[in-house]
Amino acid sequence: MGVDRTETRWNGWGWTEHFDELSHNSAVWDWMASELGMSALLTTPAVPLSEIELPPSRLATAALNALAEVVGEAWVKASKFERASHARGKSYHDLLHLRAGHLDTLPDAVVYPANPLETLDVVRRCADRGLAVVPCGGGSSVVGGVTAECTPDQRGVVVLDTTRMMRVLTIDEVAMTAVVEAGIYGPDLEEQLGERGYTLGHYPQSFQFSTLGGWIAARGAGQQSNKYGKAESWLVSTKLATPRGFWTTECFPASAAGPNLNDLVLGSEGTIGVITEATVKIQRKPEAKDYRGYMFNSFTEGLEAVRTIVQARLPVAMVRLSDESETHFFRAFSDAQKPASFSRTIKKNIESLVLKSKGIGETPCVMIIGVEGSAQQINTTRAATAALVKKLGGKAIGKGVGDKWYEGRFHGPYARDPMLDHGLGVDTLETSTRWSNVPHLHKAVTEAIDQAIRDNVPNARAHGIVMGHVSHSYTDGASLYFTFAFPRDLNHEVEQWLAIKKAATEAIVEHGGTISHHHGVGTDHAPWLVEEKGPLGLSVLRAVKNDLDEAGIMNPGKLIS
Amino acid sequence: MGVDRTETRWNGWGWTEHFDELSHNSAVWDWMASELGMSALLTTPAVPLSEIELPPSRLATAALNALAEVVGEAWVKASKFERASHARGKSYHDLLHLRAGHLDTLPDAVVYPANPLETLDVVRRCADRGLAVVPCGGGSSVVGGVTAECTPDQRGVVVLDTTRMMRVLTIDEVAMTAVVEAGIYGPDLEEQLGERGYTLGHYPQSFQFSTLGGWIAARGAGQQSNKYGKAESWLVSTKLATPRGFWTTECFPASAAGPNLNDLVLGSEGTIGVITEATVKIQRKPEAKDYRGYMFNSFTEGLEAVRTIVQARLPVAMVRLSDESETHFFRAFSDAQKPASFSRTIKKNIESLVLKSKGIGETPCVMIIGVEGSAQQINTTRAATAALVKKLGGKAIGKGVGDKWYEGRFHGPYARDPMLDHGLGVDTLETSTRWSNVPHLHKAVTEAIDQAIRDNVPNARAHGIVMGHVSHSYTDGASLYFTFAFPRDLNHEVEQWLAIKKAATEAIVEHGGTISHHHGVGTDHAPWLVEEKGPLGLSVLRAVKNDLDEAGIMNPGKLIS
Repeated sequence: MGVDRTETRWNGWGWTEHFDELSHNSAVWDWMASELGMSALLTTPAVPLSEIELPPSRLATAALNALAEVVGEAWVKASKFERASHARGKSYHDLLHLRAGHLDTLPDAVVYPANPLETLDVVRRCADRGLAVVPCGGGSSVVGGVTAECTPDQRGVVVLDTTRMMRVLTIDEVAMTAVVEAGIYGPDLEEQLGERGYTLGHYPQSFQFSTLGGWIAARGAGQQSNKYGKAESWLVSTKLATPRGFWTTECFPASAAGPNLNDLVLGSEGTIGVITEATVKIQRKPEAKDYRGYMFNSFTEGLEAVRTIVQARLPVAMVRLSDESETHFFRAFSDAQKPASFSRTIKKNIESLVLKSKGIGETPCVMIIGVEGSAQQINTTRAATAALVKKLGGKAIGKGVGDKWYEGRFHGPYARDPMLDHGLGVDTLETSTRWSNVPHLHKAVTEAIDQAIRDNVPNARAHGIVMGHVSHSYTDGASLYFTFAFPRDLNHEVEQWLAIKKAATEAIVEHGGTISHHHGVGTDHAPWLVEEKGPLGLSVLRAVKNDLDEAGIMNPGKLIS
Repeated sequence: MGVDRTETRWNGWGWTEHFDELSHNSAVWDWMASELGMSALLTTPAVPLSEIELPPSRLATAALNALAEVVGEAWVKASKFERASHARGKSYHDLLHLRAGHLDTLPDAVVYPANPLETLDVVRRCADRGLAVVPCGGGSSVVGGVTAECTPDQRGVVVLDTTRMMRVLTIDEVAMTAVVEAGIYGPDLEEQLGERGYTLGHYPQSFQFSTLGGWIAARGAGQQSNKYGKAESWLVSTKLATPRGFWTTECFPASAAGPNLNDLVLGSEGTIGVITEATVKIQRKPEAKDYRGYMFNSFTEGLEAVRTIVQARLPVAMVRLSDESETHFFRAFSDAQKPASFSRTIKKNIESLVLKSKGIGETPCVMIIGVEGSAQQINTTRAATAALVKKLGGKAIGKGVGDKWYEGRFHGPYARDPMLDHGLGVDTLETSTRWSNVPHLHKAVTEAIDQAIRDNVPNARAHGIVMGHVSHSYTDGASLYFTFAFPRDLNHEVEQWLAIKKAATEAIVEHGGTISHHHGVGTDHAPWLVEEKGPLGLSVLRAVKNDLDEAGIMNPGKLIS
């Protein structure tokens, strides 16, 4: 149970043991170089932890003892590995710092409470001592949501690691809800629910290394949110340890007793308290899952199909639509990974001819539709979606592409480490907007990222790859998820990233997108939050924060810095 | 367009012209008397407005002129009728005051801004002059949400009537959303959307006399919320005029940019600002509607069926399940309205025999299932629900009972006026809880109301009628709606109501229900809000209120008094 952090990469993604197939495939790197307008890629390994010197913990023995009194000595950790692995989250920006050995933000101790009472006691003792508390579950934030920092007037930073709180406490099989400790990792949660035949169904890409509390705090979304809902759909109630004590939010199927305050916890990112428990809606584990591919002539055509499917309220689990660039990249990437051969060339030519005969041109877009449920539900929904897709110009390309996507659905982030080892940068960002604005926003953000990369690459011929896909969809709109890779400017890594990030976010804000659909705000998006909430909205958020955390010890610098 | 208030009952429900069939049917009153353990009913007419003397408006000419500068002289109204008809909402408690001519709370003027700018200007001018602002749409609150009151330090009360703002501004047919002025009444909204083939589908019982802004401010629910959603499901964004200026909330299909602040507007009940516009999700107008009845042996059996239907996610528009008492009452009431005859007696006996032959006993429960959509969708869903109902012991009783319910779906409140004329009291209240607690809560609240009525009736043999039904259902729980009638204690009308209300609400709170599922908090539920939100939750709500309305001029005494 749980994740042993010592078996994970403190400055990269996932298990240390994970075999990075990419690293050893020089053909891929040659191809990647040519895609980016580079003659060759560099070798840029990370600085190993052993070569990094950490500043000493600022916590005096008295403070450490005060924390140990609560959780036991063994659960107040200040080893080099503990501090380094809790210094930051897992964004590209974070990895730049960690890999360079720039541990400028660092916890002075990592504390692991065993239960809500210990959590509250830790928060209070930190408050008494002027220490910042950074709540941390899996620590997989990609927006700077768990950076272990404090304000100049605070005396140090304690990372409050919630991952010892990892039990499903009760399952209400009549109401189809479960009360769960918030530090539970995705796989443990699904295992414990699964034993009784249930699922939460929340599978973000970070699933293996993120926790229930994090999903709620960041208002996350799983890949199958069409069926299982975004965090705000499945959350019923939470228990938080705040500097003012426990706050248990209302717990009803629906209410008109004033605003539903669970919505203030969703997206609160540790700034008002530590989520220790949550009541969540569960569903019966689906008997079967069916993921399959379709091909469209253009992103525009594909968008129309996604919209039609969700507005018809067909009970799909997922609809994922890659744009032309992403479709091209993944097909070419897949080709580049395999050795060239006469038979492969023939196979590719035949595939291309078959698509052409079906009316699909040179720059197609792949859609993957997932359906989960009983065999009968799957058949009915698959038939309905297939008919709609066909009517709207899409072509079925079979189950293979769906199975492949499903199999690799958590592996994306692993590709980042070898890319970083090869002088490349790679980041993702996401947004959402109403359907009528999706094409426009997609174009504007793609162009902004592309231009910002061109303006910030180390040599004039180099450029980036910018890809997008629809990751989540609603009756009134959809999210757009962008992935972009680029040659790193080794002398100005962080500045280069900041310039690209700024250009992308400004384009998002200017063209009607939200600064985040499911990653959250953290430090990275905080400067733009006012554009989205308005000055009064931000003022309200500050008022809530000040009411619960007057001293400002909870996750300083995040969300509403 | 709109509702001409002069054609409505200032101290009762709906159109003045409405023919109260009940009033003229003495057989019904004899039956009612016997049901309540009374030998006969009294005649207790309301005091006509002509006999009531109102205190003079506290607004000086300068203040009236300042408001007239904004909206024009014609739209600052202080006639007797305007003031009286905006004094209170439409709860039983309100009607007791109004019918007795006790106009203890009263606006000093009613102001009708034409647009958001005028609204903001009115709010600001009231703030400058220390006047309370009570936002009011249709004024149909049944929880004291629009009582025209102010605090002792305020200089008067202005009711801000939003109903001149009644246009659908834009329809986005791609995103399936509409931007609508918030003062629009239900019928106008549906007419304007309907002309383009769309519907919001929000049909509360007050539909004809309530507005979009009110539905949002009170977190309302329409009768068909299974399909169209409660206010929090269909609201995308709002524009509010607050004492600090306009606040336009975020407007995205979904976001992780911190808490979604629309959820603070939903249920805000005019305490932070006036909702002037809203973006809402619309749906295509259904081609057809199908409402039909089923009969269960017991409420418990019926509950199991409602739960199974919603947890199976069958796309019904409505499932309504009356308990034994409500089923009995409406069947007996219906009988009492018709003159007795030999053929009617035969018909009743045959009906009873048929039910018995189907296995339905003496105290059945009626369920009405509504399905809306295309003919094909209706057929599919009807077949699926009918099969489920049959499997769970229910018997189909045909379309007649469904059609009858549908036809009379807005008429319930009209019955109150003649009952009040006959010395009776009648009130409704509602709650929600998780499925596993629904039977327990239903029993506890029923008993509490019944006992409180017995403890507070004018004579020892008298008692009340307490009926309940499931009105709205979710995968994790359902709402329970209670209607209760009782002989009024004419010398202590308000105290009697307060005692019953207190007993019911305490039972709700003690047994795990919310103090309101869709009526709101207003003044009537405010004392219990802290039980539901907790002291920290209430503190957060106060912080939000104070941030936007530091002087406390917005709808004082409501929600978080």
